[in-house]
Amino acid sequence: MAKLYLEDFAVGQRFISDTRAVTADAIKSFAASFDPQPFHTDEAAAEKSFFKGLAASGWHTASITMSLLVRSGMPIAGGLIGAGCEIEWPKAVRPGDVLQVESEVVAVTPSRSRPERGMITIKSMTKNQKGEVVQVLTSRMLVWKKSIP
Amino acid sequence: MAKLYLEDFAVGQRFISDTRAVTADAIKSFAASFDPQPFHTDEAAAEKSFFKGLAASGWHTASITMSLLVRSGMPIAGGLIGAGCEIEWPKAVRPGDVLQVESEVVAVTPSRSRPERGMITIKSMTKNQKGEVVQVLTSRMLVWKKSIP
Repeated sequence: MAKLYLEDFAVGQRFISDTRAVTADAIKSFAASFDPQPFHTDEAAAEKSFFKGLAASGWHTASITMSLLVRSGMPIAGGLIGAGCEIEWPKAVRPGDVLQVESEVVAVTPSRSRPERGMITIKSMTKNQKGEVVQVLTSRMLVWKKSIP
Repeated sequence: MAKLYLEDFAVGQRFISDTRAVTADAIKSFAASFDPQPFHTDEAAAEKSFFKGLAASGWHTASITMSLLVRSGMPIAGGLIGAGCEIEWPKAVRPGDVLQVESEVVAVTPSRSRPERGMITIKSMTKNQKGEVVQVLTSRMLVWKKSIP
Protein backbone atom coordinates (compact mmCIF):
# COMPACT_ATOMS: atom_id res chain seq x y z
CA MET A 1 0.00 0.00 0.00
CA ALA A 2 1.27 3.49 -0.86
CA LYS A 3 2.68 5.53 2.00
CA LEU A 4 0.84 8.78 2.56
CA TYR A 5 2.20 12.27 3.21
CA LEU A 6 0.39 15.35 4.46
CA GLU A 7 -0.46 16.40 0.89
CA ASP A 8 -2.23 13.07 0.36
CA PHE A 9 -4.73 13.55 3.19
CA ALA A 10 -8.09 15.30 2.95
CA VAL A 11 -10.98 15.65 5.35
CA GLY A 12 -13.51 12.88 4.80
CA GLN A 13 -11.07 10.20 3.61
CA ARG A 14 -11.87 6.81 5.08
CA PHE A 15 -9.76 3.73 5.84
CA ILE A 16 -10.98 0.28 6.86
CA SER A 17 -8.66 -2.09 8.72
CA ASP A 18 -8.38 -5.85 8.75
CA THR A 19 -9.98 -7.71 11.66
CA ARG A 20 -8.56 -9.16 14.86
CA ALA A 21 -10.26 -11.70 17.11
CA VAL A 22 -10.14 -11.36 20.89
CA THR A 23 -9.96 -14.54 22.97
CA ALA A 24 -10.61 -15.02 26.68
CA ASP A 25 -6.95 -16.03 27.07
CA ALA A 26 -5.77 -12.81 25.39
CA ILE A 27 -8.06 -10.73 27.62
CA LYS A 28 -6.72 -12.41 30.77
CA SER A 29 -3.09 -12.29 29.63
CA PHE A 30 -3.18 -8.57 28.82
CA ALA A 31 -4.96 -7.86 32.11
CA ALA A 32 -2.42 -9.84 34.13
CA SER A 33 0.32 -7.51 32.90
CA PHE A 34 -1.49 -4.20 32.72
CA ASP A 35 -4.97 -4.17 34.27
CA PRO A 36 -5.21 -6.90 36.91
CA GLN A 37 -8.82 -6.41 37.99
CA PRO A 38 -11.18 -9.39 38.55
CA PHE A 39 -13.56 -8.43 35.73
CA HIS A 40 -10.63 -8.70 33.29
CA THR A 41 -8.86 -11.75 34.76
CA ASP A 42 -11.45 -14.22 36.10
CA GLU A 43 -14.72 -15.37 34.50
CA ALA A 44 -16.48 -16.22 37.78
CA ALA A 45 -15.57 -12.94 39.50
CA ALA A 46 -16.47 -11.05 36.31
CA GLU A 47 -20.00 -12.52 36.36
CA LYS A 48 -20.63 -10.82 39.68
CA SER A 49 -19.10 -7.49 38.62
CA PHE A 50 -20.38 -4.36 36.87
CA PHE A 51 -19.51 -6.02 33.55
CA LYS A 52 -21.56 -9.21 34.23
CA GLY A 53 -18.97 -11.34 32.46
CA LEU A 54 -15.36 -11.23 31.33
CA ALA A 55 -14.52 -7.96 29.55
CA ALA A 56 -11.32 -6.71 27.93
CA SER A 57 -9.43 -3.84 29.51
CA GLY A 58 -10.07 -0.63 27.61
CA TRP A 59 -6.29 -0.40 27.21
CA HIS A 60 -6.33 -3.82 25.55
CA THR A 61 -9.01 -2.56 23.13
CA ALA A 62 -6.93 0.55 22.46
CA SER A 63 -3.81 -1.56 21.87
CA ILE A 64 -5.61 -3.93 19.50
CA THR A 65 -6.95 -0.89 17.65
CA MET A 66 -3.39 0.40 17.29
CA SER A 67 -2.21 -2.96 15.93
CA LEU A 68 -4.96 -2.88 13.30
CA LEU A 69 -4.11 0.70 12.33
CA VAL A 70 -0.39 -0.11 12.05
CA ARG A 71 -0.86 -3.31 10.07
CA SER A 72 -3.69 -2.33 7.79
CA GLY A 73 -5.56 0.81 8.72
CA MET A 74 -3.56 3.92 8.00
CA PRO A 75 -0.47 3.91 5.74
CA ILE A 76 1.31 7.07 6.93
CA ALA A 77 4.84 7.61 5.55
CA GLY A 78 7.33 7.37 8.42
CA GLY A 79 4.89 5.51 10.66
CA LEU A 80 2.03 6.26 13.02
CA ILE A 81 3.30 8.72 15.62
CA GLY A 82 0.61 10.01 17.93
CA ALA A 83 0.87 13.27 19.86
CA GLY A 84 -2.28 12.67 21.81
CA CYS A 85 -5.84 11.41 21.65
CA GLU A 86 -9.28 11.16 23.19
CA ILE A 87 -10.90 7.80 23.83
CA GLU A 88 -14.40 6.66 24.75
CA TRP A 89 -15.38 3.09 25.50
CA PRO A 90 -19.15 2.90 24.96
CA LYS A 91 -19.39 -0.92 25.12
CA ALA A 92 -17.32 -3.75 26.58
CA VAL A 93 -15.23 -6.08 24.40
CA ARG A 94 -16.05 -9.74 25.13
CA PRO A 95 -14.28 -13.07 24.49
CA GLY A 96 -14.92 -14.12 20.91
CA ASP A 97 -15.40 -10.59 19.61
CA VAL A 98 -13.79 -9.77 16.26
CA LEU A 99 -12.70 -6.16 16.03
CA GLN A 100 -12.28 -3.91 13.00
CA VAL A 101 -11.39 -0.23 12.81
CA GLU A 102 -13.04 2.35 10.57
CA SER A 103 -11.08 5.59 10.41
CA GLU A 104 -11.97 8.97 8.96
CA VAL A 105 -9.79 12.04 8.52
CA VAL A 106 -11.45 14.92 10.37
CA ALA A 107 -8.72 17.57 10.12
CA VAL A 108 -5.49 18.21 8.20
CA THR A 109 -3.33 20.90 9.76
CA PRO A 110 0.06 22.00 8.37
CA SER A 111 2.49 23.12 11.08
CA ARG A 112 2.85 26.88 11.37
CA SER A 113 6.41 26.70 12.68
CA ARG A 114 7.81 23.59 10.95
CA PRO A 115 7.44 23.53 7.17
CA GLU A 116 8.33 19.84 6.86
CA ARG A 117 5.43 18.49 8.88
CA GLY A 118 1.82 18.77 9.97
CA MET A 119 -0.86 17.00 11.98
CA ILE A 120 -3.87 15.01 10.92
CA THR A 121 -6.78 14.30 13.21
CA ILE A 122 -8.31 10.88 12.72
CA LYS A 123 -11.53 9.52 14.21
CA SER A 124 -11.25 5.75 14.50
CA MET A 125 -14.33 3.71 15.40
CA THR A 126 -13.52 0.21 16.63
CA LYS A 127 -16.48 -2.09 16.04
CA ASN A 128 -17.26 -5.68 16.99
CA GLN A 129 -18.63 -8.35 14.66
CA LYS A 130 -22.19 -7.07 15.25
CA GLY A 131 -21.20 -3.58 14.13
CA GLU A 132 -21.44 -2.22 17.67
CA VAL A 133 -18.96 0.54 18.52
CA VAL A 134 -16.68 -0.55 21.38
CA GLN A 135 -14.24 2.36 21.18
CA VAL A 136 -14.12 5.83 19.65
CA LEU A 137 -10.55 7.10 19.32
CA THR A 138 -9.82 10.61 18.08
CA SER A 139 -6.08 10.90 17.59
CA ARG A 140 -3.69 13.61 16.46
CA MET A 141 -0.88 12.15 14.38
CA LEU A 142 2.33 13.63 13.08
CA VAL A 143 2.55 13.50 9.28
CA TRP A 144 5.48 14.55 7.08
CA LYS A 145 5.17 16.66 3.96
CA LYS A 146 6.26 15.19 0.67
CA SER A 147 7.79 18.47 -0.45
CA ILE A 148 8.88 21.44 1.61
CA PRO A 149 7.53 24.62 0.01
CA MET B 1 -5.69 0.43 51.63
CA ALA B 2 -9.24 1.65 52.18
CA LYS B 3 -11.56 1.49 49.23
CA LEU B 4 -12.99 4.84 48.24
CA TYR B 5 -16.56 5.79 47.32
CA LEU B 6 -17.85 8.95 45.65
CA GLU B 7 -18.35 10.62 49.04
CA ASP B 8 -14.65 10.07 49.82
CA PHE B 9 -13.36 12.05 46.84
CA ALA B 10 -12.73 15.80 46.72
CA VAL B 11 -11.12 18.07 44.14
CA GLY B 12 -7.42 18.45 44.85
CA GLN B 13 -6.84 15.03 46.45
CA ARG B 14 -3.59 13.47 45.27
CA PHE B 15 -2.40 9.88 44.94
CA ILE B 16 1.14 8.67 44.21
CA SER B 17 1.70 5.22 42.73
CA ASP B 18 4.52 2.73 43.10
CA THR B 19 7.11 2.61 40.32
CA ARG B 20 7.57 0.26 37.36
CA ALA B 21 10.71 -0.14 35.30
CA VAL B 22 10.57 -0.40 31.51
CA THR B 23 13.10 -2.66 29.79
CA ALA B 24 14.05 -2.82 26.11
CA ASP B 25 12.65 -6.36 26.03
CA ALA B 26 9.31 -5.20 27.42
CA ILE B 27 9.15 -2.36 24.87
CA LYS B 28 9.82 -4.77 21.99
CA SER B 29 7.49 -7.45 23.30
CA PHE B 30 4.55 -5.06 23.71
CA ALA B 31 5.22 -3.56 20.29
CA ALA B 32 5.38 -6.98 18.61
CA SER B 33 1.80 -7.62 19.73
CA PHE B 34 0.26 -4.19 19.48
CA ASP B 35 2.41 -1.56 17.75
CA PRO B 36 4.87 -3.28 15.39
CA GLN B 37 6.72 -0.23 14.09
CA PRO B 38 10.53 -0.20 13.72
CA PHE B 39 11.07 2.56 16.32
CA HIS B 40 9.37 0.30 18.92
CA THR B 41 10.81 -3.06 17.85
CA ASP B 42 14.39 -2.63 16.64
CA GLU B 43 17.23 -0.58 18.16
CA ALA B 44 19.12 -0.01 14.90
CA ALA B 45 16.06 1.07 12.93
CA ALA B 46 14.95 3.23 15.85
CA GLU B 47 18.27 5.13 15.78
CA LYS B 48 17.46 6.32 12.27
CA SER B 49 13.84 7.22 13.06
CA PHE B 50 12.05 10.29 14.42
CA PHE B 51 12.67 8.95 17.93
CA LYS B 52 16.45 8.58 17.49
CA GLY B 53 16.50 5.42 19.58
CA LEU B 54 14.16 2.74 20.88
CA ALA B 55 10.98 4.23 22.36
CA ALA B 56 7.97 2.60 24.00
CA SER B 57 4.63 2.66 22.23
CA GLY B 58 2.35 5.28 23.75
CA TRP B 59 -0.13 2.46 24.33
CA HIS B 60 2.51 0.63 26.33
CA THR B 61 3.03 3.74 28.45
CA ALA B 62 -0.74 4.03 28.90
CA SER B 63 -1.00 0.35 29.87
CA ILE B 64 1.87 0.60 32.37
CA THR B 65 0.17 3.67 33.83
CA MET B 66 -3.02 1.66 34.24
CA SER B 67 -1.14 -1.15 35.99
CA LEU B 68 0.33 1.36 38.45
CA LEU B 69 -3.08 2.93 39.09
CA VAL B 70 -4.71 -0.47 39.64
CA ARG B 71 -1.99 -1.84 41.91
CA SER B 72 -1.17 1.24 43.91
CA GLY B 73 -2.50 4.48 42.59
CA MET B 74 -6.20 4.86 43.08
CA PRO B 75 -8.18 2.63 45.49
CA ILE B 76 -11.71 3.01 44.08
CA ALA B 77 -14.33 0.67 45.58
CA GLY B 78 -15.51 -1.75 42.89
CA GLY B 79 -12.46 -1.17 40.73
CA LEU B 80 -11.20 1.31 38.16
CA ILE B 81 -13.79 1.52 35.39
CA GLY B 82 -13.06 4.20 32.82
CA ALA B 83 -15.71 5.75 30.58
CA GLY B 84 -13.21 7.69 28.54
CA CYS B 85 -10.06 9.76 28.65
CA GLU B 86 -7.70 12.18 26.98
CA ILE B 87 -4.01 11.39 26.60
CA GLU B 88 -0.94 13.39 25.64
CA TRP B 89 2.52 11.93 25.19
CA PRO B 90 4.94 14.87 25.54
CA LYS B 91 8.11 12.77 25.76
CA ALA B 92 9.18 9.27 24.71
CA VAL B 93 9.65 6.44 27.23
CA ARG B 94 13.08 4.81 26.84
CA PRO B 95 14.62 1.50 27.91
CA GLY B 96 15.66 1.73 31.55
CA ASP B 97 13.08 4.36 32.44
CA VAL B 98 11.29 3.93 35.76
CA LEU B 99 7.75 5.25 35.68
CA GLN B 100 5.56 6.56 38.47
CA VAL B 101 2.09 8.09 38.34
CA GLU B 102 0.93 11.17 40.23
CA SER B 103 -2.84 11.58 40.14
CA GLU B 104 -5.05 14.46 41.20
CA VAL B 105 -8.82 14.63 41.44
CA VAL B 106 -10.01 17.48 39.22
CA ALA B 107 -13.79 16.93 39.33
CA VAL B 108 -16.34 14.95 41.34
CA THR B 109 -19.72 14.70 39.62
CA PRO B 110 -22.71 12.83 41.07
CA SER B 111 -24.93 11.31 38.39
CA ARG B 112 -28.15 13.22 37.77
CA SER B 113 -30.10 10.17 36.64
CA ARG B 114 -28.56 7.36 38.74
CA PRO B 115 -28.48 8.00 42.49
CA GLU B 116 -26.10 5.12 43.22
CA ARG B 117 -23.16 6.40 41.18
CA GLY B 118 -21.14 9.32 39.91
CA MET B 119 -18.01 10.16 37.94
CA ILE B 120 -14.65 11.47 39.03
CA THR B 121 -12.21 13.11 36.68
CA ILE B 122 -8.58 12.31 37.44
CA LYS B 123 -5.49 13.92 35.94
CA SER B 124 -2.64 11.40 36.06
CA MET B 125 0.87 12.53 35.23
CA THR B 126 3.22 9.66 34.39
CA LYS B 127 6.82 10.68 35.07
CA ASN B 128 10.18 9.05 34.45
CA GLN B 129 13.03 8.78 36.97
CA LYS B 130 14.18 12.31 36.07
CA GLY B 131 10.76 13.76 36.87
CA GLU B 132 10.01 14.38 33.19
CA VAL B 133 6.38 13.98 32.21
CA VAL B 134 5.99 11.22 29.60
CA GLN B 135 2.19 11.05 29.62
CA VAL B 136 -0.71 13.19 30.79
CA LEU B 137 -3.90 11.17 31.17
CA THR B 138 -7.20 12.82 32.08
CA SER B 139 -9.73 10.08 32.72
CA ARG B 140 -13.38 9.91 33.68
CA MET B 141 -14.02 7.03 36.05
CA LEU B 142 -17.21 5.50 37.35
CA VAL B 143 -17.44 5.63 41.15
CA TRP B 144 -20.16 4.18 43.37
CA LYS B 145 -21.82 6.00 46.24
CA LYS B 146 -21.48 4.59 49.74
CA SER B 147 -25.06 5.47 50.59
CA ILE B 148 -27.97 6.20 48.30
CA PRO B 149 -29.78 9.33 49.49
